[in-house]
Amino acid sequence: MQILVVNPNTTATMTATAAHAAKSVAAVGTEIVAATSTMGPASIEGYYDEALAVPGLLLEIAKGEKAGAQAAIIACFDDTGLDAARAMANIPVIGICEAALAVTAFIARRFTVVTTMERSRIPLEALVERYGMKDRCNVRAADIPVLSLEDPNSNARDRLRTEISAALSEDRAEAIVLGCAGMADLAADLAREFGVPVVDGVAAAVKQAEALISLKLSTAKRGPYATPVRKPYTGLLESFAPQTMLSHD
Amino acid sequence: MQILVVNPNTTATMTATAAHAAKSVAAVGTEIVAATSTMGPASIEGYYDEALAVPGLLLEIAKGEKAGAQAAIIACFDDTGLDAARAMANIPVIGICEAALAVTAFIARRFTVVTTMERSRIPLEALVERYGMKDRCNVRAADIPVLSLEDPNSNARDRLRTEISAALSEDRAEAIVLGCAGMADLAADLAREFGVPVVDGVAAAVKQAEALISLKLSTAKRGPYATPVRKPYTGLLESFAPQTMLSHD
Amino acid sequence: MQILVVNPNTTATMTATAAHAAKSVAAVGTEIVAATSTMGPASIEGYYDEALAVPGLLLEIAKGEKAGAQAAIIACFDDTGLDAARAMANIPVIGICEAALAVTAFIARRFTVVTTMERSRIPLEALVERYGMKDRCNVRAADIPVLSLEDPNSNARDRLRTEISAALSEDRAEAIVLGCAGMADLAADLAREFGVPVVDGVAAAVKQAEALISLKLSTAKRGPYATPVRKPYTGLLESFAPQTMLSHD
Amino acid sequence: MQILVVNPNTTATMTATAAHAAKSVAAVGTEIVAATSTMGPASIEGYYDEALAVPGLLLEIAKGEKAGAQAAIIACFDDTGLDAARAMANIPVIGICEAALAVTAFIARRFTVVTTMERSRIPLEALVERYGMKDRCNVRAADIPVLSLEDPNSNARDRLRTEISAALSEDRAEAIVLGCAGMADLAADLAREFGVPVVDGVAAAVKQAEALISLKLSTAKRGPYATPVRKPYTGLLESFAPQTMLSHD
Amino acid sequence: MQILVVNPNTTATMTATAAHAAKSVAAVGTEIVAATSTMGPASIEGYYDEALAVPGLLLEIAKGEKAGAQAAIIACFDDTGLDAARAMANIPVIGICEAALAVTAFIARRFTVVTTMERSRIPLEALVERYGMKDRCNVRAADIPVLSLEDPNSNARDRLRTEISAALSEDRAEAIVLGCAGMADLAADLAREFGVPVVDGVAAAVKQAEALISLKLSTAKRGPYATPVRKPYTGLLESFAPQTMLSHD
Amino acid sequence: MQILVVNPNTTATMTATAAHAAKSVAAVGTEIVAATSTMGPASIEGYYDEALAVPGLLLEIAKGEKAGAQAAIIACFDDTGLDAARAMANIPVIGICEAALAVTAFIARRFTVVTTMERSRIPLEALVERYGMKDRCNVRAADIPVLSLEDPNSNARDRLRTEISAALSEDRAEAIVLGCAGMADLAADLAREFGVPVVDGVAAAVKQAEALISLKLSTAKRGPYATPVRKPYTGLLESFAPQTMLSHD
Repeated sequence: MQILVVNPNTTATMTATAAHAAKSVAAVGTEIVAATSTMGPASIEGYYDEALAVPGLLLEIAKGEKAGAQAAIIACFDDTGLDAARAMANIPVIGICEAALAVTAFIARRFTVVTTMERSRIPLEALVERYGMKDRCNVRAADIPVLSLEDPNSNARDRLRTEISAALSEDRAEAIVLGCAGMADLAADLAREFGVPVVDGVAAAVKQAEALISLKLSTAKRGPYATPVRKPYTGLLESFAPQTMLSHD
Repeated sequence: MQILVVNPNTTATMTATAAHAAKSVAAVGTEIVAATSTMGPASIEGYYDEALAVPGLLLEIAKGEKAGAQAAIIACFDDTGLDAARAMANIPVIGICEAALAVTAFIARRFTVVTTMERSRIPLEALVERYGMKDRCNVRAADIPVLSLEDPNSNARDRLRTEISAALSEDRAEAIVLGCAGMADLAADLAREFGVPVVDGVAAAVKQAEALISLKLSTAKRGPYATPVRKPYTGLLESFAPQTMLSHD
Repeated sequence: MQILVVNPNTTATMTATAAHAAKSVAAVGTEIVAATSTMGPASIEGYYDEALAVPGLLLEIAKGEKAGAQAAIIACFDDTGLDAARAMANIPVIGICEAALAVTAFIARRFTVVTTMERSRIPLEALVERYGMKDRCNVRAADIPVLSLEDPNSNARDRLRTEISAALSEDRAEAIVLGCAGMADLAADLAREFGVPVVDGVAAAVKQAEALISLKLSTAKRGPYATPVRKPYTGLLESFAPQTMLSHD
Repeated sequence: MQILVVNPNTTATMTATAAHAAKSVAAVGTEIVAATSTMGPASIEGYYDEALAVPGLLLEIAKGEKAGAQAAIIACFDDTGLDAARAMANIPVIGICEAALAVTAFIARRFTVVTTMERSRIPLEALVERYGMKDRCNVRAADIPVLSLEDPNSNARDRLRTEISAALSEDRAEAIVLGCAGMADLAADLAREFGVPVVDGVAAAVKQAEALISLKLSTAKRGPYATPVRKPYTGLLESFAPQTMLSHD
Repeated sequence: MQILVVNPNTTATMTATAAHAAKSVAAVGTEIVAATSTMGPASIEGYYDEALAVPGLLLEIAKGEKAGAQAAIIACFDDTGLDAARAMANIPVIGICEAALAVTAFIARRFTVVTTMERSRIPLEALVERYGMKDRCNVRAADIPVLSLEDPNSNARDRLRTEISAALSEDRAEAIVLGCAGMADLAADLAREFGVPVVDGVAAAVKQAEALISLKLSTAKRGPYATPVRKPYTGLLESFAPQTMLSHD
Repeated sequence: MQILVVNPNTTATMTATAAHAAKSVAAVGTEIVAATSTMGPASIEGYYDEALAVPGLLLEIAKGEKAGAQAAIIACFDDTGLDAARAMANIPVIGICEAALAVTAFIARRFTVVTTMERSRIPLEALVERYGMKDRCNVRAADIPVLSLEDPNSNARDRLRTEISAALSEDRAEAIVLGCAGMADLAADLAREFGVPVVDGVAAAVKQAEALISLKLSTAKRGPYATPVRKPYTGLLESFAPQTMLSHD
């Protein structure tokens, strides 16, 4: 099995963090291929960055599918561009937020997502509702910039711990979901420290991708994920016309 | 007052239709400025087109704000890029779906949106839910390509009529919302023909834009619509870095 | 355009406050006609007053419609009698709560209504749910009598400020909605003081009334707002029989 | 125990029907006192009639409480004036819709309310939602005037049967709720005919009133049902001032 | 009327408490028959105990129906085994949680259930949602073992008082529901002490059982409560085969 | 990895069907151990059978955990006994309904569960709601006895096909979920026949069990799934006391 992990921002160190998390849980026989977007924002902090990250993300997924990937993972907790990617691709596409929530739902009735920036709470709450978890999942923000997670001198991890403590004491959380791909390497340590399950979305998504490949399931093409209609695209994004993106040559 | 109407696809005839609808309801003293996206898809039919239409849309709104627009309207019924635009702009930004639903809610308890393509039903149903109308608003699709609305020889308008009839007899609809900017010129005729209120989103959005300008209200910048963080953007989308897009020179 | 603003309680100073707020945002060419109910409670504080305010309200709307009003506004934040008025009138009728919520929803994702009395919270929460804003709008009460807003020696405005502060720090509110027609003159000052959008329902409703008139839309008469059936009314309320109230002579 | 059954319309024959239904299920030792409103509409068909029926209803409840009633029942399926009555009275007040739904919920998972006029469907659906039954209870209208139920020559009962049949075959209804006080005498016959439980709200409300009296429970006076504040009432409704209505002399 | 009250745990003193509460509100002519399960857990604290209490509960209901009971009450606030019992029995079956919530909904808009153990909150919240009260009813746990309620030397009742105080000050509760059959004897004292309605489920259920018997209503047998299909049962539970349990000899 | 698949009914041929489906998707290195309940009903058709199947199910899971299983699957689409099993076991426990819904949600926006008996629709709809899929997933029943699936001469499979066709044409289903463990062997054929994804819960659950084991995640023991409290159990179920069931000797 070949699984593509796309980092939709352009920061290669975050790709490395995600790739490492993915490889550490991949089954025997699963090959993880990691890709970094070549266009758009260096980090995704809110709606604006998210929108501008989508073209670069789609490009990597289209390339990965042509190169043989059997499933794609979007390694940003906003599930950036998930719907567009599902419509475009023939292989299944999985967001790390949706994978993390689905996995956590098997082991806890109430849980809390801890993310980075305050401005991401509303978008993540919208995802939590979309995935059917509104009544059992809170979202908290540690109020830290995304890239500070990469900086050993920042207080980012302490702030994360503060929110986890609050989730356990105030939200009746039984488990914690890490709300940023950049936190993927922290899950095991935090689980030990707090004595509760801590779920990382990248790892969760790898197992879901393996599951779909193994079950021979891919995105249903009746309805909203029908293959995009061929049509002219112009200007800077001319090359993103469906007939160009989806050509297999 | 100056109100910007952006067509997020690249088809100028659709811009003209929307501009005409906007001007026909604008108050004395309101100037309508219409803009067509210069990059991306020729029509927006589903998630993929929608995602790729966003950069061109954002560019037109940024240019319009610098040129003096006091409010911006996104003239696509998917409310394409609305959240990103709200975060980016200092002027208020209004989607035609949200405006149409808000206006119709003042005059009917149950109503139906009639849109073009089947694949747009799920995205529109998600908007209906987001705007709090899930329990009172159905979505129907006439199963016609968006650009066929421009073609006098197509049967698009007949199919539209068929769905309106079905909405009245099966959905208990008391009013109809036209679910595509390309239908803006049909509202008055259909209202007469069916004897029920028929709401066009472009016209509705113009009145909401005038309202916000008059009330001196613009997007709250606490929370998800906080101004985007300055950061590097690279590759094809380098010029979309917030510090570039939002510079006022 | 002629827009009728009805104060459904019998206190003329509150009518004056609402009329002033209405006029200050009315477009060129909009005439505001203000009316005070001639029967019922001096202020509306909870369900009992609300119910007894309805006949007087309906009478003013019926008179206003005959006198040429093209839209009516109910200037009480409980949207007192809105459904009955919509069924009775041929012109559109707008409640100030629904108008305020609709306008605020264009500029904020989460917001808080600050009202007067604790006993009004449940009725306002029910309106918030009815208008589809349950997941994004809290209701707080400053625990002040309605008419204390008119008294410069009361501490009513300080209590209002206390609740606004709490909304911003505890509710994640991005904007504030003033939950009483008697607060209409405070919006601009509070917006300046707190640095967030503050929305007054009377002003919001005027712009919505102008919008509906301009869009040539009125209440759909299929379904719950069908014109009342002619029938005998007796006793004290004999003159409210539909055939009497709706006669145009 | 003394239980007051108020018919909020002015048609005495409907009061007699309700009183008969009430007496037929009253426990040994329960006295049923029936009252007909002395002011307002002859039947309640939609929002307008409903609003104008409230003052007369409140008057009868206030008089009944002074005369010794220990609980009051509002014998109209719209639960007309229920909130105002609960705030006003010290004795518990029960609506026949809420009683019917509460009772039916003990014996069926899905059920259907069959009411009279199409225009009443939205108001009843709002009650069904308020009482927490939205996911398990449909509302159907037989499209008959309320008073036709009293007319042996009308086809009202046939139309009612048609809707019951449709509820059983199309709604997966396991039981039927009769959605009008005027249908109270039909429950037993329809249950026999269709072989499913058929619930009449008047009878259901009598048993709930007995339950509350027996349990020594009455309306909580913290929150929305706090006793109305004393204040001036003027004009036609002057005598409805709380201090007058609630005086016990 | 004969009403069966089944304690689904095996502790006879709890049965006595429930029986006493039941008898104290029973109408003239109602006979209360109390039964204690003969198999399974000594108290029901969470999902595991609840599941294992069901066979013993079903056995008592089957025996009670054969012995002439006209309705059965399950005297455990988890409404343990309610659905299975309803499918099995021909007489109506009532859970004390559903009865308590239904009764409280007639007298308060917001209320709080105070139960024993933290682990029971999620199951009770699920019941609150199932019965349609999610938006108006909180659940609190006093964090006490069920059987400590029987022990005069425990601090169980103090902890219960602490949670009731918190419900009144923090939840906007207007009334309190006691969330355990073992609290049945405390309702009157707590109501006096806190000055708000306090509802006990056993007493509430007796009145609902009387209501259903009086209204000649029993469980609808179309849909999920259809009589169980005859089939082989084996092993330890062989005697629970429907054809054995339901035989009337 | 060792995964236990428990058939909670006593029919060994259904266990064989489930075991075969499980083995066909198990990863290299995954051992599937299948167990049949030794007590209770021969098939699970509605609430009554479901309740009586739980003790036998719990016994097999307790035995399996002691014997080295690292995860357990409940191979009945009602997710019979899931909560009790999660509280009892230290290994993760997965229901086939929840697994099937979680997997399908990654590949479709709307889908339909097709189950066997009409009486199972309400229980399955309750599961669909619990798992957060109410707005995107319908439930249909083919109206066939569970064991008829094993009988090559029954028309069970034709009825199943009829419902799948209806789901595709009437429910806007993009994918189908097979709503009974006894259908596990039909998924591939039906997917080919109808050209849409068809998901079997047993196979889906195996992949989720592998995922949890691989991610080193198990049931959170804070909250509702806390380990059962030691206490006396008596009568027929004496041996189910937690201290006996959970002993590891």
